[in-house]
Amino acid sequence: MINQKMRELGAKRSVIRELFEYGKKRKAEIGEDKVYDFSLGNPSVATPEAVNAALSDLLSSENPVSLHGYTSAQGDPGVRAAIADYINFTYGESVNADCIYMSVGAAAALTCSLTAVVSAGEEVIVPSPYFPEYKVFIEKCGGVIKEVACDGELQPDVMAIENAISEKTAAIIINSPNNPTGAVYSEKNIKALTEALRRCEKRYGHPIYLISDEPYRELVYDGVTVPYLTKYYNDTIVCYSFSKSLSIPGERIGYVLVSPRCEDFTSVYQAVCGAGRSLGYVCAPSLLQKALPYCLGKTADISVYDRNRRMLMERLSEFGFEMIRPQGAFYLFIKSPSGDANEFCERAKNHEILIVPSDDFGIGGYARLSYCVTTEQIERSMPAFEALAKSYKEKENG
Amino acid sequence: MINQKMRELGAKRSVIRELFEYGKKRKAEIGEDKVYDFSLGNPSVATPEAVNAALSDLLSSENPVSLHGYTSAQGDPGVRAAIADYINFTYGESVNADCIYMSVGAAAALTCSLTAVVSAGEEVIVPSPYFPEYKVFIEKCGGVIKEVACDGELQPDVMAIENAISEKTAAIIINSPNNPTGAVYSEKNIKALTEALRRCEKRYGHPIYLISDEPYRELVYDGVTVPYLTKYYNDTIVCYSFSKSLSIPGERIGYVLVSPRCEDFTSVYQAVCGAGRSLGYVCAPSLLQKALPYCLGKTADISVYDRNRRMLMERLSEFGFEMIRPQGAFYLFIKSPSGDANEFCERAKNHEILIVPSDDFGIGGYARLSYCVTTEQIERSMPAFEALAKSYKEKENG
Repeated sequence: MINQKMRELGAKRSVIRELFEYGKKRKAEIGEDKVYDFSLGNPSVATPEAVNAALSDLLSSENPVSLHGYTSAQGDPGVRAAIADYINFTYGESVNADCIYMSVGAAAALTCSLTAVVSAGEEVIVPSPYFPEYKVFIEKCGGVIKEVACDGELQPDVMAIENAISEKTAAIIINSPNNPTGAVYSEKNIKALTEALRRCEKRYGHPIYLISDEPYRELVYDGVTVPYLTKYYNDTIVCYSFSKSLSIPGERIGYVLVSPRCEDFTSVYQAVCGAGRSLGYVCAPSLLQKALPYCLGKTADISVYDRNRRMLMERLSEFGFEMIRPQGAFYLFIKSPSGDANEFCERAKNHEILIVPSDDFGIGGYARLSYCVTTEQIERSMPAFEALAKSYKEKENG
Repeated sequence: MINQKMRELGAKRSVIRELFEYGKKRKAEIGEDKVYDFSLGNPSVATPEAVNAALSDLLSSENPVSLHGYTSAQGDPGVRAAIADYINFTYGESVNADCIYMSVGAAAALTCSLTAVVSAGEEVIVPSPYFPEYKVFIEKCGGVIKEVACDGELQPDVMAIENAISEKTAAIIINSPNNPTGAVYSEKNIKALTEALRRCEKRYGHPIYLISDEPYRELVYDGVTVPYLTKYYNDTIVCYSFSKSLSIPGERIGYVLVSPRCEDFTSVYQAVCGAGRSLGYVCAPSLLQKALPYCLGKTADISVYDRNRRMLMERLSEFGFEMIRPQGAFYLFIKSPSGDANEFCERAKNHEILIVPSDDFGIGGYARLSYCVTTEQIERSMPAFEALAKSYKEKENG
């Protein structure tokens, strides 16, 4: 019979999607340039030329039957070797091709990893705010999400996390650079967190997997670096996507890296492969896989995002909005002047500004602004933001 | 903790994969041309030129950010409309874009459909022999597989199926042209089957979904046609893949079609979308999606498969092997002369012939031969088949 949980998931659009659809409708009503849509985290910067060049070259030079043929379930061995070499070169790691499972994007990397290491009734810790699909993915494998609020700097609250971990804890999901806050978790924080995780592993006598969701790894600013988590903690599973770094989110290509130092590495890797198989992932798209070795280390021109970020922080601060300086991804997390996220976003809508209330991200009182838009849109929206800020001051004074 | 079921699924290669790996090793030992590998169902015929032409054109003409961008979760609306038009034109149906959910190949179409309409403890009927992953997919959503043996002509045994259906039956999976037998289920059989399903729906007071797994729809011979199941039964869900028709199995592109006449169509379609979301399918690969409108109705040159089929049937019959004449897909299902599938396949191995024992397909006493190979390999293998046949006669006489 129809699975009601699935029906609800399919019927209920996410708040983000609702806003985006509203934006489309509103643009049709009052004009494209009169609506300031900051709702979607959809890369806006051109795909690096290397991507299309590699795809075109493969199409014109390779035998189509093998080019478009099945790869092994884990992914093409040459592609996995190239990725392993890139990781070793870039992060000083020593992984090999057999630590890598090519996935249909980061979402699939997460569902395969969670299905591999979480059994029914077990708990998964998630620092909040967090990407709302985590809850969907955790619950699909019978797990229970345990949200632990970040500290005032939007960094994981290590003590609270340690207190939340129990004998039922199977994993923790970390997402840095973070969606929705743009925070990059500092090395100091990661060190403290992984020390706490080690203590808990000892205390409860079983591995607690650190699942690192990294679609924004390369999108960082102000010269910050994102710690590579396998170097801090053995039981690490990295879920990577090329969606954002290469501006190819629709192509669904990424990978799972199981740290070779994972306790019982072979079983974890096998369980990821088995999860992929049982969820219907036969292999990651072959043409895209085979283009990757020519694109590793390339990124879209992220200076555009940085320019947008600086402009927004400067001007919105001038108008009186408060925010934590984001150092990664393409999100700005703005405090609601009224303290109420929904009230803030509804009022923004009156000024044709579309931003996402933070409640769906597991925390109240903020709005997420996606600045993966044209710089021109940001410039154009400034009077609207100014008017929005003014509307709160009038209220205070009135 | 590591999910042991997933670990086992990842650790245990399928019998088919084991054979294929053995074949690779054996080829390295005694020479590529001395091993006759008929193990894998991997298309061997060139991808139609339209595929690469469409991909190249899109790469050179479209804005890369939108070309490689997210499509809606159900798939690009224009692509879905083109597919709906093609179905309507070809099969005289009247479906529309909103009946179609673009999937990451047929395996994903199946996992999304099963997750949508099967809840824990419910039963799914599968005529045997059947593609072994069905069991994996059904069990992943908590369902119970109920195998019902086909009749002597390898057609579904309608009376046995009706007897096997209970109040717990949520769905039946039909796969015609069939893997592993190559059988095409006749219109007569489909009519009887769907009448039985309607009786059972009435008897038990709830829908029983007919899930039609159709990766081989276009691969048919002797002028047979494959009935389009939505026309025979309202509660039909079609799982289609372009893997075999376009020789692009690695690209993972297909769709779910929920018949507009399904009872509670909207809920079923929403549940498919929700299932896709919860399993980590954000959208089907966008570049491939967008190439499809230029490739609908095109197929790889399947006359090669037909030539292989005819040659094999003629020669193997001459040698004394027995088989049901296959009219579709690229599989020949050969009776084991000893009645034991494993004995037959092991003995074939001694003659460097790699064929798959039928036990894993849910039936004993046969071997599956995949003839998606070069005609030249078939010619070359004939002395080995002759010797294999002779070895049984010697045994009889000796």
